[in-house]
Amino acid sequence: MNHSRIARVIENINACGLDQILVTGTPSVYYLTGNWVNPGERMLALYLNANGDTTLYANRLFALNGNTDCKLVEFDDTEDPIAMLASQVKPGKIGIDKVWPSQFTIRLMQAMPGITPVLGSAPVDDARMCKDAEEIDLMRKSSRMNDEAIQLTMKDVCEGMTELELQDAYMKNAKKVGGDGSSFHPITCFGANCAEPHHDNDETRLKQGDAVIIDVGLMYNRYCSDMTRTVFFGSADDEQKKVYDIVRRANEAGRAVVRPGVPMCEFDRAARKVIEDAGYGKYFIHRTGHGIGLEVHEHPDNSATSQIIAKPGMCFSVEPGVYLPGKFGVRIEDLVVVTEDGVETLNAMDHDLRIL
Amino acid sequence: MNHSRIARVIENINACGLDQILVTGTPSVYYLTGNWVNPGERMLALYLNANGDTTLYANRLFALNGNTDCKLVEFDDTEDPIAMLASQVKPGKIGIDKVWPSQFTIRLMQAMPGITPVLGSAPVDDARMCKDAEEIDLMRKSSRMNDEAIQLTMKDVCEGMTELELQDAYMKNAKKVGGDGSSFHPITCFGANCAEPHHDNDETRLKQGDAVIIDVGLMYNRYCSDMTRTVFFGSADDEQKKVYDIVRRANEAGRAVVRPGVPMCEFDRAARKVIEDAGYGKYFIHRTGHGIGLEVHEHPDNSATSQIIAKPGMCFSVEPGVYLPGKFGVRIEDLVVVTEDGVETLNAMDHDLRIL
Repeated sequence: MNHSRIARVIENINACGLDQILVTGTPSVYYLTGNWVNPGERMLALYLNANGDTTLYANRLFALNGNTDCKLVEFDDTEDPIAMLASQVKPGKIGIDKVWPSQFTIRLMQAMPGITPVLGSAPVDDARMCKDAEEIDLMRKSSRMNDEAIQLTMKDVCEGMTELELQDAYMKNAKKVGGDGSSFHPITCFGANCAEPHHDNDETRLKQGDAVIIDVGLMYNRYCSDMTRTVFFGSADDEQKKVYDIVRRANEAGRAVVRPGVPMCEFDRAARKVIEDAGYGKYFIHRTGHGIGLEVHEHPDNSATSQIIAKPGMCFSVEPGVYLPGKFGVRIEDLVVVTEDGVETLNAMDHDLRIL
Repeated sequence: MNHSRIARVIENINACGLDQILVTGTPSVYYLTGNWVNPGERMLALYLNANGDTTLYANRLFALNGNTDCKLVEFDDTEDPIAMLASQVKPGKIGIDKVWPSQFTIRLMQAMPGITPVLGSAPVDDARMCKDAEEIDLMRKSSRMNDEAIQLTMKDVCEGMTELELQDAYMKNAKKVGGDGSSFHPITCFGANCAEPHHDNDETRLKQGDAVIIDVGLMYNRYCSDMTRTVFFGSADDEQKKVYDIVRRANEAGRAVVRPGVPMCEFDRAARKVIEDAGYGKYFIHRTGHGIGLEVHEHPDNSATSQIIAKPGMCFSVEPGVYLPGKFGVRIEDLVVVTEDGVETLNAMDHDLRIL
């Protein structure tokens, strides 16, 4: 158990007017207890109440073997964990983790008609949003390893290779630099495919004059990195150079505006304004960034409507892009952590235009 | 849309006294609509009612682009898909997919206080449980490819290698034979680690006299295979040979008893009895099998208490095991499909005792 994190979550439980919550997502349970459990279809739940009672409910197959210093209730496949949980849950409002499969929420409601389930992830999500020193250190290491992996991958780029071959190259490089696997499905795409922000890599072959988007991340001690670089193969024409420069300036403008107290929508606004002012506003079709940590997408949300206020320790991506259908796309993404007076960029690779 | 599958699900909706359900799991939505969508934190839901109304709610980022012949309601990140859904859902009972993240169920309950969510996966799970001819063909191909991959992997076994190295070897072989990746985290473990049914592969090195459990599966056109073979490295002592023979006979006894009309608990009983009669009952610590198809674990459940009745087209694993803590373990797993008068084994590899 991480007692300082538990204490922060209990403060948050009280602050949002809840008495009790169930924490069930794998990364959140890990964050608080140090146990990484993929429960599959089985039940995993950490009960926490405003008085500090903490009980982890886990199937014996998860093999925690008492290896946790919070109260542990174990069960097997022939037992009913919902009945066990119902003996601890109090009637009234209960905060439920947003990711808990509905089967458990519905069965708990049926076992306890006196409860009112409400969304209950915020106390843990808010705590996880501001990384502590140990986490920032892991985030930094993960991003630095990704720097190395992406640089190796650029050396593997060659004419006629397929997007899937470049993906394989990144996967090998991520492993070579010591990463524990990819933090998300890598995007390594060419030419007109770069105009789809979530392109699924395919057998498209690289040719002269193509833009190449490399949007990749790895895991280090369960912490995710995520970086995008757009390079050009053989040559870049005037429009490609112009769009690259706009996106580079949008990335810088976004990072420049963040400091404690600034709402995240202003961050999105600052980056978006550069692209709009250059006349490409309608080609920037996603939010400017997303929080990252134990998960590749977590709080804060960095969209145009986000009212979340920047605080020290927040880690998120800065990833403006311009997508020209049928032609090409450019995205430049870094990870930052909010400091006392601005941001620190977690990855180190520069933004120079690269023609490979 | 697969109209015959939809028709079967609508029959099931009526049969279980529901008027409307929400299908949200990725494999279930694929099974009915042909669209494979990993929604991440975004909402995906297929609304189906007893009259045959069918509407797919999908975020525009999923890029279905109208590529489906059911009614499609698309939305983006700035819109509220729960409000859209609420305009179609009728007050009263609604069957909710067991895997739908609770955030959506809770928000739907808040938007529509007049609904009563109940577990609503059975109509689709029951349909998926009995594979149609097209699915059985894919299951057979997936298992035959896994036969090849496991045979290649056995050739890669060598003294001093680590469990993780053998895992890598399987991953490469699964790709070599044409598999679309692993259907679950492979188990390739040695010696005393074989006594943990869900051992997490580590740096343990293979030595003479070790049992080696290879429990692996791949995907072919989204259909999963899953097979376990236990082999011995260098030599097998008398106890290892004896336990191997018991588990082999348990596997055969389980398969022999299945035909349409037999409850799955009798299948578990038949396999378990062989192990109990041999005096090792307390070392067989899990159910005898699980359903498999688009997911590696799906219906039917093959535990000692399962009342599910075998029907033609059901696909499941037969995987008795004996686990001797601190010593070794043996598991022999095949996949079968229920036929008109028994079972067909989907994988082809024999059960001979192998000393590598």
